[in-house]
Amino acid sequence: MDARTAQETPETAIQAVLDDWLDAFHQGDVERIMTHYTADVRSFDAVTALQFRGREDYAAHWKACMDFCSGEPVGEFDQVEIECDGDLAFAHMLMRCGMVGEDGRENSGWMRYTVCMRRDGNAWRIAHEHVSTPFDMNTSAVLFDLTP
Amino acid sequence: MDARTAQETPETAIQAVLDDWLDAFHQGDVERIMTHYTADVRSFDAVTALQFRGREDYAAHWKACMDFCSGEPVGEFDQVEIECDGDLAFAHMLMRCGMVGEDGRENSGWMRYTVCMRRDGNAWRIAHEHVSTPFDMNTSAVLFDLTP
Repeated sequence: MDARTAQETPETAIQAVLDDWLDAFHQGDVERIMTHYTADVRSFDAVTALQFRGREDYAAHWKACMDFCSGEPVGEFDQVEIECDGDLAFAHMLMRCGMVGEDGRENSGWMRYTVCMRRDGNAWRIAHEHVSTPFDMNTSAVLFDLTP
Repeated sequence: MDARTAQETPETAIQAVLDDWLDAFHQGDVERIMTHYTADVRSFDAVTALQFRGREDYAAHWKACMDFCSGEPVGEFDQVEIECDGDLAFAHMLMRCGMVGEDGRENSGWMRYTVCMRRDGNAWRIAHEHVSTPFDMNTSAVLFDLTP
């Protein structure tokens, strides 16, 4: 048993999935991002539609988002909390999300990110996720400027 | 063993929590709503702030929302999906949410609702929830008019 195996717990395995997801996002690698979802994933994404169902539909949405945000993706997790029992887990965190444009200026904001995961053999995959930015009750404006 | 006990599974127990939460919401009964959260609940609500931590802070936010929406609350769940294993569960659904004003007109829209639950003894309680409405990438307007 090497050091890595000795230290691996469900929580560290899930953190590794989140880290790889974030790294793939930085690389703009939608194919690698999609390996972290179950085939029947149900996503409540921050933009466009109430929901996306299935890896194929969700991949098409990811590609559309990456095309829309033509700059270099930037992302950062904060206050990640993970809970798991048996073959189920959930994690919730804040996520700074945006891009650096061709002029070198960063356009990003803090969002909320929830993932609900299912273990399939040795792999933890995202069966459901929910991403959003809150809005102001009085003005209905999206609150892009909130910070942790 | 009576018929109810014989039929109770984690899924039916969780559905009963969601049903009671929704009934309490219809009654505007914040105290009863709050019984369904853990003391350390972390909420990503649809409005106002990135997050709320702890039952006390979240109750204050619920009361502020109920005061803001002075009409009769209306709510409806659709496409509820529940998964559980051991002492952990998650559920995700669409939720029509709004109010009927004093003029009798309903002002509501479809949102997304995710709950992450933990079993404490016999009680399933919400340790994390995420509520939101998506926005339009091009205009940044909140999409209040989407339907399932």
